[in-house]
Amino acid sequence: MDRVSLRTVVLGTAESPSVHRPGHGPAGRPGRNACVYVQWAVAGRWRFLSSGRVGLRQGCDHARHDRRPVQHRFARSRLHRAERDPVVMPGRLRREPPFAFTRPSVAASFLCVRPTKLGIIGLGAIGGSLALQAKRAGIATVLGWSPELGERVAAVRQGAIDDAPSRAADVARAVELLVLAAPPAANLDLLGSLKPHVGAGALITDVGSVKRAIVARADALGLGPRFAGGHPLAGTHEHGFAAARGDLFKGAVVYITSTRDGNGAAREVAHFWESVLEAHPVLIDAAQHDRQLALTSHLPQAVASLLAHYLARAAPPGATFGPGARDATRLAASEPALWTEIFLMNRDELLPALRSLEQPLGELERALETGNAQAVTAWLSCAAQWRRQADA
Amino acid sequence: MDRVSLRTVVLGTAESPSVHRPGHGPAGRPGRNACVYVQWAVAGRWRFLSSGRVGLRQGCDHARHDRRPVQHRFARSRLHRAERDPVVMPGRLRREPPFAFTRPSVAASFLCVRPTKLGIIGLGAIGGSLALQAKRAGIATVLGWSPELGERVAAVRQGAIDDAPSRAADVARAVELLVLAAPPAANLDLLGSLKPHVGAGALITDVGSVKRAIVARADALGLGPRFAGGHPLAGTHEHGFAAARGDLFKGAVVYITSTRDGNGAAREVAHFWESVLEAHPVLIDAAQHDRQLALTSHLPQAVASLLAHYLARAAPPGATFGPGARDATRLAASEPALWTEIFLMNRDELLPALRSLEQPLGELERALETGNAQAVTAWLSCAAQWRRQADA
Repeated sequence: MDRVSLRTVVLGTAESPSVHRPGHGPAGRPGRNACVYVQWAVAGRWRFLSSGRVGLRQGCDHARHDRRPVQHRFARSRLHRAERDPVVMPGRLRREPPFAFTRPSVAASFLCVRPTKLGIIGLGAIGGSLALQAKRAGIATVLGWSPELGERVAAVRQGAIDDAPSRAADVARAVELLVLAAPPAANLDLLGSLKPHVGAGALITDVGSVKRAIVARADALGLGPRFAGGHPLAGTHEHGFAAARGDLFKGAVVYITSTRDGNGAAREVAHFWESVLEAHPVLIDAAQHDRQLALTSHLPQAVASLLAHYLARAAPPGATFGPGARDATRLAASEPALWTEIFLMNRDELLPALRSLEQPLGELERALETGNAQAVTAWLSCAAQWRRQADA
Repeated sequence: MDRVSLRTVVLGTAESPSVHRPGHGPAGRPGRNACVYVQWAVAGRWRFLSSGRVGLRQGCDHARHDRRPVQHRFARSRLHRAERDPVVMPGRLRREPPFAFTRPSVAASFLCVRPTKLGIIGLGAIGGSLALQAKRAGIATVLGWSPELGERVAAVRQGAIDDAPSRAADVARAVELLVLAAPPAANLDLLGSLKPHVGAGALITDVGSVKRAIVARADALGLGPRFAGGHPLAGTHEHGFAAARGDLFKGAVVYITSTRDGNGAAREVAHFWESVLEAHPVLIDAAQHDRQLALTSHLPQAVASLLAHYLARAAPPGATFGPGARDATRLAASEPALWTEIFLMNRDELLPALRSLEQPLGELERALETGNAQAVTAWLSCAAQWRRQADA
């Protein structure tokens, strides 16, 4: 059996949320309540064990990563167990934390990163899947809301949520973590309208495909320290609660984007995705996220729809499409209203990408015009090489 | 139990292969050997029962669809059984024949549409799958050839072929049906080089994605009555015998394109695909095939590669691609050399289609530029509506 070492790391939190990377950022004074992560090391590799908010003595120095501040019940019991029985403990967290742990920061709220009460606004494919998986993972209370009564009823009937209050504010009021899973524009509005109702210690996140707008809105509303954007790369072209699946996020990358001063919230939301939904959280800047997603998600959506749009006009009626054409156009079946919002919110990034397609398209056309087999093969090989790596 | 009616239909064959549609074509004199299809009807719907080459009395008139000419052992035994026991008999052919059966034509070759000796030139994903499925369906002898020794050995080892002669001509000489499953340009050459070796009663077909060129070559070589083009819509982006699967063609549409005077061969090849490979054959004109496939297959391939080609240049290293982007670009992993041939053989159809993409692309760009949400939604809805029908 491998030997286990343990250490605790106090992280930046809501009140002082900057992440301290080596040689970077001020050494803050520890506050009364800090976010403590307990790590374990097996064969020299540190792994995440548990975390929690703990009460700390004012002025306590946690720079040495000692064990004393571990007051949190869950973390403490794990730590004691590990000290008694220093072998690898079973756990669901198989990966390194998604970011480097360094010197501690300061004060904190009382929120636990594994909420006992979770609220989800929007019970479509993403919100519904989130609810299903959260209940399966043992979250005590999951409340959900949807403007459609039918979806609320279906979600309760299938055990995805414990209750479906008739107003979104009632969900916001009752939970420790509120997930906005409505379409992007609605999420922006919900952030403002639900702000007065969200409990003092509660965190808010969303699941939208565009992140600059909602992160900026959270900052503008003064929700910075309590908000972090989220975006799981696990969509489906289907929509509505009927498309929800209990394993949609398992193993999926989920991007977490913090506000200007919301690194603490980002870490907590990341931990929620990792520990409850078994996703793989990756911290990313909102602007970088939107630039990247314009290429990796919004452009593929636009191109699949472009092909389908053209075929809808040009293909002979009754023509058969093989599995290749069906895969290439699958995304086109996605909900047009949702993707209109995403395209428009990210159009400053998407438009240049769309225009940039003209160059390689022109290259292929010229190679075909001149019957230049070598050029066609080289062009296709560049694409094939890239795509085969993705399957490797 | 449903009542069964039976009838026999004598079809056009190699020596007089024109298909007689009502009011069309000469009434030929029946030859010594005719291709007889036995049909059964349940609740008024005619279904295919069995077929075979039969010896017929010279001058016999089959125009009345009577039962007398059924001399073929298999067809006769089925017919007798059906007469004794007029209920629905179990059978593998669950669909209507892919074309209308009408008045009989004339003379025939001796070739049975279910060959006892099948030859396959090229043992890649398509040729290999064909061999696997043919053996599984009970074809007595399947011979295969590939320029790569490793593929020949793998195919024999996995029971896809019974033997792999060292020369393609040896395969051509020994079989009743020869399938060219090499890349399209190689198939064109093989047609000429193997012609002298193919037995007098044998049929030839191919499996390429472009059909005008090979159909024209067959006509030019005087192989018209013995050749029919084939194109199963069941490709894979993988290649080589390792990508062969025993169920690749099950339920897939396979296009059959006849030469100028090869309707008889086309029907026999169609029946081979239906009865042996459980595919769904559809007769189509070669020019119409190439025009249609430019849109339904070659354009999706080009667009998937276009997206991958651009992403290979523009996407940030290490960026994660979700299932949507992966599906949209899957085809890009296809073999570049193969698709270069297909693109160039069909470039007069593919190029206009590629250029026509510019119009809907421009429409989307303008809608995004002006922030016209309604126009973006309408554009996406046109694509979504079309694509959702394909899933329905």
